[in-house]
Amino acid sequence: MAKQPETVRFAIMGCADIARKVARAIALAPNATLSAVASRSLQKAQTFAAQNSLPDTVSLYGSYHELLDDPTVDAVYLPLPTSLHVQWAVAAAARRKHVLLEKPAALNTAELDRILEACESNGVQFMDGSMWLHHPRTSHMHQLLSLSHSGSIGNVQFIHSTSTMQTKPGFLESNIRVKAELDGLGALGDLAWYCIGASLWAKGYQLPASVTALPDVTRNAAGVILSITASLHWHQPNQTEATIHCSFLSHTSMDLAISASNGSLHVRDFIIPYREDIASFDFTFGAKFVDLHIGWNVKPEQVNVPNLLPQEALMVQHFATLVAAIRDCGSSPDNKWPEITRKTQLVVDAVNKSLDLGCKPVFL
Amino acid sequence: MAKQPETVRFAIMGCADIARKVARAIALAPNATLSAVASRSLQKAQTFAAQNSLPDTVSLYGSYHELLDDPTVDAVYLPLPTSLHVQWAVAAAARRKHVLLEKPAALNTAELDRILEACESNGVQFMDGSMWLHHPRTSHMHQLLSLSHSGSIGNVQFIHSTSTMQTKPGFLESNIRVKAELDGLGALGDLAWYCIGASLWAKGYQLPASVTALPDVTRNAAGVILSITASLHWHQPNQTEATIHCSFLSHTSMDLAISASNGSLHVRDFIIPYREDIASFDFTFGAKFVDLHIGWNVKPEQVNVPNLLPQEALMVQHFATLVAAIRDCGSSPDNKWPEITRKTQLVVDAVNKSLDLGCKPVFL
Repeated sequence: MAKQPETVRFAIMGCADIARKVARAIALAPNATLSAVASRSLQKAQTFAAQNSLPDTVSLYGSYHELLDDPTVDAVYLPLPTSLHVQWAVAAAARRKHVLLEKPAALNTAELDRILEACESNGVQFMDGSMWLHHPRTSHMHQLLSLSHSGSIGNVQFIHSTSTMQTKPGFLESNIRVKAELDGLGALGDLAWYCIGASLWAKGYQLPASVTALPDVTRNAAGVILSITASLHWHQPNQTEATIHCSFLSHTSMDLAISASNGSLHVRDFIIPYREDIASFDFTFGAKFVDLHIGWNVKPEQVNVPNLLPQEALMVQHFATLVAAIRDCGSSPDNKWPEITRKTQLVVDAVNKSLDLGCKPVFL
Repeated sequence: MAKQPETVRFAIMGCADIARKVARAIALAPNATLSAVASRSLQKAQTFAAQNSLPDTVSLYGSYHELLDDPTVDAVYLPLPTSLHVQWAVAAAARRKHVLLEKPAALNTAELDRILEACESNGVQFMDGSMWLHHPRTSHMHQLLSLSHSGSIGNVQFIHSTSTMQTKPGFLESNIRVKAELDGLGALGDLAWYCIGASLWAKGYQLPASVTALPDVTRNAAGVILSITASLHWHQPNQTEATIHCSFLSHTSMDLAISASNGSLHVRDFIIPYREDIASFDFTFGAKFVDLHIGWNVKPEQVNVPNLLPQEALMVQHFATLVAAIRDCGSSPDNKWPEITRKTQLVVDAVNKSLDLGCKPVFL
């Protein structure tokens, strides 16, 4: 794709599987270019470049420090294990690199705050890698939740979401995402990040008053969470309850269902759409029973939202737009993104604390 | 519809709105006839007969005792307020009338047990009015849950269901279903009966090990539950969690979503299908992400299940078949139905107790 003149030069720090998807997204985004890739060894970076047919213009580094010394790099995408985020995101910000950080952002809010403080004090943009927020479907759904919109479904009263995936044999003991020393949050970080994020999104990023884990948590031998169910509770100005279910032990699902005073909204692929070029959601508005209660007056209506770029490329494009404005026009970083991340992390922490307390409610 | 020779003669005790639907169902069922209607006054029974164009052959009574004295009545359908169920269901069984009892079956299991003991000792069939269990769609969905079936979605791991309805102005203070002295269970009886029933159904009627109410309960001034969220937890032989959300304060919804080890199942009108003549559900089997995780390998598959009779007529037909077998062939009552009802009531009681304990888990 033809690049815009003021393109943002990205580097990828770490060659995780997800980096392949983001490398493609950087190639697709009209205002982004991949300029460097680093891994812990040069050979790994070279293998990644070959496997993903990266052009020769991409610099390859055998250490993250070398990459951060590259003055041509504007922004880094960090798909490293969560336990390494604080070290390398802080180092990147200190070198004035803008930080696109894979989720979960950190092991806890204290670590995240070190990252966000480093970004703020160095004037760089922060964003976490929640791709679904950048899909045009998400904006369309948000209109239905906006009370000022004529077709609004009203006050949100109940939110249910799932993020489950069937893992390959061996995953549950050896994958990075369930290793205590690498991604100690397990499913609570990797999967619940989406459900907590979606619940907050549906509530306009109002933090819940309390969070309660439910008693069905499953852990592997190292104590890492493989499956978790929890509830979030808001009581002002309107009462809302959210339930989330996240598991590495179940069939793949990513349901989001929102019930409001005048309607409801359903989507079953909210994290990764079934298809790259179009995504849909259903809503029901003003449902009543017909006489004798032998049926409904309406059926769910399906809305199809086409997208020219996949959601991860839209994420890169959006991030690069913010970075270019800072770099070229002296704009300030957009605080919306670190705030979303921090609220999500606070709820992750609260779920974890509720588990520690034997599923007692934790008040925020 | 032409009736079969050995038709079962039904009486309706009480002229609630739901009785209109069941009167029609009795007319539609090929093996049932409506032979009598009773209300607390003859005038009410006459009005009901006129409004529903009942034939002259239907006897009208101004008291429930008179109706129970009618020797031509085989079975009674009881849509009375829940607080009256124990008195009149026991009286009906004592007169050897088979009992089709509107849900919730009773205010608590102690009351239900008096009803079930009366039915058992008098050799009459008992069934509660959960119509959705009789829809052919329910059997089709059950095949997907059956591990012996080749297309099974595997072990059930998570169940989510809702039963919410938008009520008319005035309902929340004055309707029978939220009056402390008439239907003291409120939404926990009227709505959660379905969600608890569906959760038990999905688990093959295994009782959960524990039940926990979530902290978002809403009550009216009289203390009757208007909105409730709860979780059910099984840990043997497989871990399963169910969440239910039931509310008179929200837009109409009746979602049932089941996640299992190899697939998932979704239905959004499980209690009352959108249409009377056909109902559908979706399932996803063996979902995986395509390379780079930029989409899915499958989309949900929709199954459409036509039905010649509405589900309430199928319920009446099924009940009448059991009654005729007892009446004409000396068969014994089918214990499956009172057992389903009793397990549902036990879980209703447990949710209530968890609320009383400040949302602590209640072990069954």
